[in-house]
Parts: sequence; structure tokens; C-alpha cells
Amino acid sequence: MELKTAFPRTRKPRTLEWACAIHGGAGAIPLTTPEETVKRYREALAGILAGGIELLSDGAAAIEVVEALVTAFEDNELFNAGRGAVYTSDARHELDAAIMDGLTGRSGSVAGVRRVRNPVRLARAVLDSHDHMFYAGEGADRFAETRGLDLVENGYFDTAHRYRALCEARGHGTVLLDHDQGYGTVGAVVRDRTGNLAAATSTGGMTNKAPGRVGDTPLIGAGTYAANGLAAVSATGRGEAFMRHMVAYDLCARIRYCGTALEDAAHDIVMNEMKAGDGGIIAVDHAGTIVMPFNSPGMYRAAADSSGDLIVAIWDSPEPTSGTR
Amino acid sequence: MELKTAFPRTRKPRTLEWACAIHGGAGAIPLTTPEETVKRYREALAGILAGGIELLSDGAAAIEVVEALVTAFEDNELFNAGRGAVYTSDARHELDAAIMDGLTGRSGSVAGVRRVRNPVRLARAVLDSHDHMFYAGEGADRFAETRGLDLVENGYFDTAHRYRALCEARGHGTVLLDHDQGYGTVGAVVRDRTGNLAAATSTGGMTNKAPGRVGDTPLIGAGTYAANGLAAVSATGRGEAFMRHMVAYDLCARIRYCGTALEDAAHDIVMNEMKAGDGGIIAVDHAGTIVMPFNSPGMYRAAADSSGDLIVAIWDSPEPTSGTR
Repeated sequence: MELKTAFPRTRKPRTLEWACAIHGGAGAIPLTTPEETVKRYREALAGILAGGIELLSDGAAAIEVVEALVTAFEDNELFNAGRGAVYTSDARHELDAAIMDGLTGRSGSVAGVRRVRNPVRLARAVLDSHDHMFYAGEGADRFAETRGLDLVENGYFDTAHRYRALCEARGHGTVLLDHDQGYGTVGAVVRDRTGNLAAATSTGGMTNKAPGRVGDTPLIGAGTYAANGLAAVSATGRGEAFMRHMVAYDLCARIRYCGTALEDAAHDIVMNEMKAGDGGIIAVDHAGTIVMPFNSPGMYRAAADSSGDLIVAIWDSPEPTSGTR
Repeated sequence: MELKTAFPRTRKPRTLEWACAIHGGAGAIPLTTPEETVKRYREALAGILAGGIELLSDGAAAIEVVEALVTAFEDNELFNAGRGAVYTSDARHELDAAIMDGLTGRSGSVAGVRRVRNPVRLARAVLDSHDHMFYAGEGADRFAETRGLDLVENGYFDTAHRYRALCEARGHGTVLLDHDQGYGTVGAVVRDRTGNLAAATSTGGMTNKAPGRVGDTPLIGAGTYAANGLAAVSATGRGEAFMRHMVAYDLCARIRYCGTALEDAAHDIVMNEMKAGDGGIIAVDHAGTIVMPFNSPGMYRAAADSSGDLIVAIWDSPEPTSGTR
């Protein structure tokens, strides 16, 4: 399995049964981060990935797996999505998410969600509605009510570490991407046993962001895209850069129109087209090849495929885990 | 000037000084529409286009011209944008708009706007803010307040003909795209004298739509995109189709990656990739070539360039106006 963040040079000769990658945000994660904190992130990533591996081994559909993976991130307060989301400038939480099914081309997006425990599940409900494809603001919460989703008070998303980050950001008069300058968005991409692709992304956005601000996460083609035969992509980083370059769709366009290999296309977009520090992407193609390039100092990430390879990493070099399988 | 809706076969040999196209929505506009109504639409299109021609002749920048053109559409109650916008299912108006500058790659998007007279001006203010790129819901209106934009009560957007359409839609229990099954979105694309491109789009969405529903209009890459050297694009039609295919960006990707001519790329996307009835696009490339393909029975549209050519059309064949210039 080629999971290097730099330009991958080796490729597997055959199509894999299934493949799966997740990210928990990119950014300037300090190499001096306390070992205990690093351990918590690693364990969280490994635990979330393990859930996806189990589902994929059992033959679950790609769209189900990306929803389950991102739901697990949203329920973990370490990450800036669902519980643990950052605060807006008015000390509330507004959550964005998107999900796309590479088989049908259908997608669901939500922005500015305030009362839904798992925004990615709401995005999935939008996808399944076969009606609209994007809900924003109060209308998104109202749609959730009609679908019987798990509703919470906005205070459910409160965490002390994010509130401290808001106070700091207010003190500096800045809009911060995360308490540690990481971007914190979470996402998942999957190729299932039948060859179907899917992608999902979820975020609390930027600390001290203006109410109503929407980033790239819920925007199909920018932060999230999936098309069978091409690739499934989820991005994390400066939303504006991903919107300008339409990064998720552009990766698929290069594969489709230029016949470029996933590794080459992803490398060129992240390392040459985007600016250093913008962030990164995770992507999987129809053959099960996984890439996770980023141009920020670190990106919380993990991946596994049916060959038995598994990796959990934060900084530049992939660091194999002690192995749960 | 090649402005045919079918596959254009002639091309101008040289780069034009400036070129400009506008649309006022695509859809099943009945050929039996009363002559008086047709005349009003033609006059409105010709009048709005004339404003753009004057600006471009005076050397105005593309980004200024698309903003002015779409503002004029928004102020005209014939079109489903700004005043004259359709009603949501709770009998209010929620407006979406986007604008993109092909020179800088910057864009501004707004969704679910309720109190801003000209949503495209708000989108422009977002673009100019050099901060966030997309605001949705109440946060968009609040951002407008901080920028000193013209605010109105939601009732300003009321018109009798759109209210009748809401009553009809409620009677049928359907979400209608327009009172006459046209889609009503408006847009403009421009190449200015310096070769810069820009695009803008604005809409009231669909009659009887759920509050919070966002279509393709404000989504950069779906309904709106502009990149110098490639093309400026604005779409109108079934938002979901434009989101799935990332139509506006895809047109630019085909030019960039395949070297396809604007006419060929636009034709293939609208006539082959999309389904009949989905709608249409207007686009202009770096040489000033204009295309306006659509796969619905009609599309309100008009275009002009510095060669002196000018056209105003609704159905399949381009019908030259009596000529105001």
C-alpha cells in the first residue's frame, strides 16, 4: 500500500477488494505536541478506522461506510466536527457536512447546522430525499426534524478547549482555523468490495468565524467528490483555496480527461497548484489505490486496504501502527 | 458572432475587444406565450444588455459589468431574481447569488438571503472582503448590514404572479421551478477589453421550495465559474444536474486539459452529458467567443460583442433584433 504523503512511487499490481482512508484535519500540528496528546489522536484514528475495516470486510456499501466513519469522528470531541466543533464569533456552533455516492452521482450537503447531533447523517438524509441536494441554516435543522434525526441543544457541541480557543482568537481579533492552527475538518473516502466509491466530509469550520460563513466542506466539487471509475476525495485545509481550485472535482477531471494516475494528479494539485500550508486531501480510486498528500506540516490520517496494510500517521513520514490486525 | 443554440460551426478569426452574454432563465417557455409578454421579455433583455454594452465600450472591468448586468435583472420583476423572485413553501423569499473574477480567482457566494435588495451586490461584497467566500442564511443578511448594502423588507420581493404560482404549486403539492416551468435564474458572462473574464448568477430558486434549500446558483463550479485564459460560465436549469456534473468548472477543465474549443466543450456537456430539459449555459472564452447552448425548449438570452453583432432570443433559432446599434 502506498500511503506516503510525498510522491508515491510504488503501485500495487492488482485491484484491491476494498480500501479506505480517513483524515482528522491538516495544519501546523507542532512536533512538540505532548506525547500523551499524540497518543490520544493516534488511538482515536486507529479506533475509527477499525470500525470502517470491520464494515468493509463484512461487505458494507461505500456510502454506508463513509457515513459511519464520519459519524464516529463527529462523536469524538478531539476533532473539529460534531461534538468538539469550534465556536463562531457569537459563541455558538454552526456545522457543515457533505456526502457523495460515486455510484449514483447523488450528493447531500448541509451548512450552518445548529441542532443536529451528526451533520453527516443529515447530509445523508438530504442525499436520500431525492429532492433538494443542499440545505443551509435554520432550514437544515427543520429538515432534520422531519427526518427523525437525533437532535441536540447547540450546547451539546460545547467543549472547554474550543471555548479557550475562541477567547484567544477574540483576544487577537483573528479568525483561527483551529486551537492549534490545525484545520480540524474530518473526512472519509472508501472503495467497497463491489467497486463503488463514496466520500464524506464534516467540520465545525473556523474558530471565531462569522455566523453564516460556509467553507468548502459542504461544497460538492471543492471539499468532497466521488465518481465511480474515477475517484473519491475529501479535503481539509483553507476552504477558500479548495473552492478556488475546485480541488475534489479537479482530481477526477484530470483522471478522466488526461488519463493521469491518481497519485500523479493528487501530487500535482496539492504540491504544485496549491500553496504551502493550504492543507491536504485523501483520495481512493477505482483500483483501491490510496493517496493522502498534504502541504501543511501535518495531517491526522489513517488508511487500510484488503491486502492487510494499515497505517496511522500525523506528520510527514508514515508510521505503521503496532498493528491491530 | 456565433450565438446559435445548436452546435456552432463558424468562428471569428480574431480576438474580440469585448464580448458579453446574459440569460434570464431556461425552461419550457410555451411557443404560445402571448405576443405582448414575449415583447416585454425581449425589451427587458435588450435593455439590460444595452447597459452592459455601454459599460464595456467605456472600458469597464468584467467584474463590474457582470455585477451591473445581474443587478439590472434583479431589479426587473419579470425575472426570478431579486424583485420578482419566487416564494418558498412558507411564502417568503430566499435568494441565492454568486460572482467570480477570472483574473484573481476570487469569488463571493450568498444563499438564503432575505433582506438584501440585490443579492449579487452582497456576493460582490463577500468577494471583496478577502475573508470568507460564502455566507448563508441570517448570517448573510447580517454581513450585508456591516457593508452598508441596500436593505429591504422581505415583502419587497413580493409580486402577484409569483404568489399565484405558489398557490398553484401548493394545490398540486409540487415544487415548481417557475410559474411557467421556466427556471428563471439570471446570469451574465463577460470578456472585457483587457481580456479579463467574469461571471455572475442570481436566483430566487424554485417555487414552493423548502426553506433553507440551496441550488446550484451560489455554488462555484456548479452554476458559476470564471478563469482567465479559459472561460466564464453561468448556468440556469435543474440545479441538481449542474451540481452533479460540476458544469461550470467542467467546461473550463475540458478547455484546460483537453484543449477542446469552447463551442465543442459546451455543446457536449449540455447536449450529451446532461439530460434533455435540464437547462442551459452561457459562456465566453478568452478570445471573446460566445456560446449559449440549452437543452430545454427555450432560454431567455442575449449577447453582443465589439464587432457590432447583437442578438436577443428566447427559443431555438437566434432572432436578430431590429438593432439598437
